[in-house]
Amino acid sequence: MVLRVYLAGPEVFLPDPMAHATAQKRICAALGLVGVSPLDTFADEPAAWMDLPESRRIARRNEAHIRSSQAILANISPFRGPSADSGTVYEIGFGRALGLPVFAYTAALDDYAARVRALAGGNEICDADGLSIEDFNLAENLMIACAICESGGTVTRLGGASWGSLEAFERCAASAAAALLA
Amino acid sequence: MVLRVYLAGPEVFLPDPMAHATAQKRICAALGLVGVSPLDTFADEPAAWMDLPESRRIARRNEAHIRSSQAILANISPFRGPSADSGTVYEIGFGRALGLPVFAYTAALDDYAARVRALAGGNEICDADGLSIEDFNLAENLMIACAICESGGTVTRLGGASWGSLEAFERCAASAAAALLA
Repeated sequence: MVLRVYLAGPEVFLPDPMAHATAQKRICAALGLVGVSPLDTFADEPAAWMDLPESRRIARRNEAHIRSSQAILANISPFRGPSADSGTVYEIGFGRALGLPVFAYTAALDDYAARVRALAGGNEICDADGLSIEDFNLAENLMIACAICESGGTVTRLGGASWGSLEAFERCAASAAAALLA
Repeated sequence: MVLRVYLAGPEVFLPDPMAHATAQKRICAALGLVGVSPLDTFADEPAAWMDLPESRRIARRNEAHIRSSQAILANISPFRGPSADSGTVYEIGFGRALGLPVFAYTAALDDYAARVRALAGGNEICDADGLSIEDFNLAENLMIACAICESGGTVTRLGGASWGSLEAFERCAASAAAALLA
């Protein structure tokens, strides 16, 4: 059985994203998984897509990639703020609605609430706009953290990893392989 | 026909979220829509849910609410960073995978790329971590912006609106009603 796993995360914004995707795919292959990258294109892309703006072609490709996958591996490290990359979070929600298990990895050892409180200057209750700070001892907003849990996935936390590091990804992929190939 | 619209957004973190949800529902009703709030509970909540942590009960409720809705109205205003609230983004992805149209509103008049560049101190190409800045002249990361567009939805931009303001929401709901009840 071929187990396709979609590689969600802001690694697509790295200086050499193709090289990184290739390395991620190699790690997947060694574990018996087929890594599907957001950078992958289709040899037979529909002709109608050619006239679309590049952004919509990318979006259609990525949604098709998720629909053709059996699980999602997602980098939920805080990205330009206390939360994960919004594109990645979108893809987690998309996959979850399709029933896919979500396996996440993050460089943050602290919880979402702690990160928001740090941003709010230590205020425990609410942020600078007066909006309350959700605190459920979870790695992310509860919708994302619970989706991972409810789907049978895991969160791999590995502090200090840089965006180009593959160590947390490798542990996450191993966790996915153990669950999916059991 | 009853048209249920799920009310996604960080308004659930306002000091009096119930009052705000009630006001949103009133606006929906006047337009012929039934607003479904993340704060709504079920009279017949499954007994098995009682033993779950509160976070997972909320997540299950919200996913059930989205599955029972015909569209999503989502506040994608920048939240604690240049992107929308991650819980809201998750719900947009979830709804999109189910084929729901997504109608969004935001207090930001500038594009996502401009907000990231401001955060990066004006660097045009990449952020402080060296990750490239996606620039497709869109209101959010392309997955979210394209989902709204591809789903037949709209983005209502109304600068300067505070989190408790209902004006942008009302315009967004009117846009949804016009499209859904056409």
